Amino acid sequence: MRELSKALDAIAAPAGPSGLEAQQALDSLTKPPGSLGRLEELARRLSEISGRFPPEVRRAVIFTLAADHGVVADGVSAYPQIVTAQMVENLLRGGAAVNVLARHAGADVVVVDMGVAGPVAAHPDLVVRRIAAGTRNMAAGPAMSRDEAVAAIEAGIGLVEAWQRNGLDLIGTGEMGIGNSTAASAVVAALTQVPVEAVTGTGTGVDEEGRRRKVAAIERALAVNRPDARDGIDALAKVGGFEIAGLAGVILGGAARRIPVVVDGFIAGAAALAAVRIKPEARHYLLASHRSTEPGARHVLDALGLEPYLDLQMRLGEGTGAALLIGLAKAAVKIVGEMATFKSAGVTDRAP
Amino acid sequence: MRELSKALDAIAAPAGPSGLEAQQALDSLTKPPGSLGRLEELARRLSEISGRFPPEVRRAVIFTLAADHGVVADGVSAYPQIVTAQMVENLLRGGAAVNVLARHAGADVVVVDMGVAGPVAAHPDLVVRRIAAGTRNMAAGPAMSRDEAVAAIEAGIGLVEAWQRNGLDLIGTGEMGIGNSTAASAVVAALTQVPVEAVTGTGTGVDEEGRRRKVAAIERALAVNRPDARDGIDALAKVGGFEIAGLAGVILGGAARRIPVVVDGFIAGAAALAAVRIKPEARHYLLASHRSTEPGARHVLDALGLEPYLDLQMRLGEGTGAALLIGLAKAAVKIVGEMATFKSAGVTDRAP
Repeated sequence: MRELSKALDAIAAPAGPSGLEAQQALDSLTKPPGSLGRLEELARRLSEISGRFPPEVRRAVIFTLAADHGVVADGVSAYPQIVTAQMVENLLRGGAAVNVLARHAGADVVVVDMGVAGPVAAHPDLVVRRIAAGTRNMAAGPAMSRDEAVAAIEAGIGLVEAWQRNGLDLIGTGEMGIGNSTAASAVVAALTQVPVEAVTGTGTGVDEEGRRRKVAAIERALAVNRPDARDGIDALAKVGGFEIAGLAGVILGGAARRIPVVVDGFIAGAAALAAVRIKPEARHYLLASHRSTEPGARHVLDALGLEPYLDLQMRLGEGTGAALLIGLAKAAVKIVGEMATFKSAGVTDRAP
Repeated sequence: MRELSKALDAIAAPAGPSGLEAQQALDSLTKPPGSLGRLEELARRLSEISGRFPPEVRRAVIFTLAADHGVVADGVSAYPQIVTAQMVENLLRGGAAVNVLARHAGADVVVVDMGVAGPVAAHPDLVVRRIAAGTRNMAAGPAMSRDEAVAAIEAGIGLVEAWQRNGLDLIGTGEMGIGNSTAASAVVAALTQVPVEAVTGTGTGVDEEGRRRKVAAIERALAVNRPDARDGIDALAKVGGFEIAGLAGVILGGAARRIPVVVDGFIAGAAALAAVRIKPEARHYLLASHRSTEPGARHVLDALGLEPYLDLQMRLGEGTGAALLIGLAKAAVKIVGEMATFKSAGVTDRAP
């Protein structure tokens, strides 16, 4: 608990003049005030969160955490469990969607084994923070112990601690885990008290029968485990996953270091919800990348009070939405840094 | 009329197998089918339009056309007319918003003087296609003659012809012109028959009184000139602008060459509407970048049958939205070109 307590103690709502400085700079540039809309807001938030003006995104890292889920025994996924391990290898070879989009955005992808069941071939870039070889089936009992949940959260905090040593301006959250949309829906239902039916979608693409199996498994999991809606760690332990708990840790670690954290889609959103339940002030450090088509995403965003920047009808995860937002954040930073001002360009400002 | 007729004759709805090939390729990649949503759709449309599989965006050019508007005499803008010339110089020095966002996206900006009133300092990169030193006041009579409108359209077609010689995979539309949101609203009202009130916003930032002056000027312009809703050239001539007509030409030139054209915001949208009225099949070559906050933008997108990819509450023009979409298009192309397939990565596809 020591690393977790330390991080929680360090998290406070961002303060200081940097957000205002960014807004004043934006208003001096050769464009009608506010005319770049959310791109301006994004630049201002990056300044506000980091406490730095001008805002900078020299190094952005997407942490893509992978783990397996015991609940797949209940037939909740369109893909077999071995795909988690296979996709970890694909991620390490750079062939997954998030690799492509991260390269495009100039971000690094850090692939972390938080508890993959199948064998993963050794790879120099694989970061191993395994808690166990997949969670237990939450439909029959807790997915993990509270100690395991804390260990997973602290592993996430530790990732940020390790990577920030070489400079880290923007964090992306990503995940891979067959069955993890079921765990995410359970966490969201547990923490928001929204009916399971309303927060459970088709995930990677099960049919309606599969979706009903997901709903049934989640309802059993909630009935068996009775997670405490006020306790993010309890929800993560009983109905979460190692990668989801790990991402909650990444978010808390980012907030503790005043590094903006980009929430990817629905599953990273469930992690964000848990992180904010653990420490409400962590909310201020979050940027919502996109509105996933998973029906629960809307409830997550509402509960977090976040308006996503993009809506591209995506539902892939891995950090793909985060990668697109990192590209947009770099654009926002360049607006502040590279545009001429009315004064420098000799452009007449609006009539008084 | 010869260049225009030639372009119009060359425009037909795109045909061929490339769109289907792109979709099949997307479905073979290591992700649930369709899970990248509109990014996949974008890749497919780039293939479909260009007739090329795989889709490519090696060279993207934003044509930012500038011109002045006689209607500014009616007090329709928050900025004085001289700002058009000053901003052209800013664009040529690379200090405007579109320069920053185009550099970020790896696109070129081509700045074209279609008819700026104020003096523009000579610059080696300035492309001069001046029709006249600004339009006449449309509230008192036609903004330009039909011959001038055709000349402006043909200048736009000529830009695409000239730039495609060195390779041109994606075209962005941009504009600069104090008063041009008034002209755009007039063109949109004329072509859609939507009430002027509903398609007229605050542009670069006039107050409500200024907006009412815009509405009054447009209503006078429509009453005086009676543009023919079925005739895009007539609307451009009577209530349009040189840059708007030029962009209609850029769009027609792109469609004739099967080059996808990204529509920027409201003013480029008015040009797109006119282009499609001139040649309905041009519609198939358009990609709508973003949903501008100008109230008329919704009517333009509805009339064109286009769903924009982005909604970032922007209202700047210049090609800023187009630049962001060019970045997204490059990402979409990389998805097709760089992601592993289930087969190549040895990832098990979904259970049969």
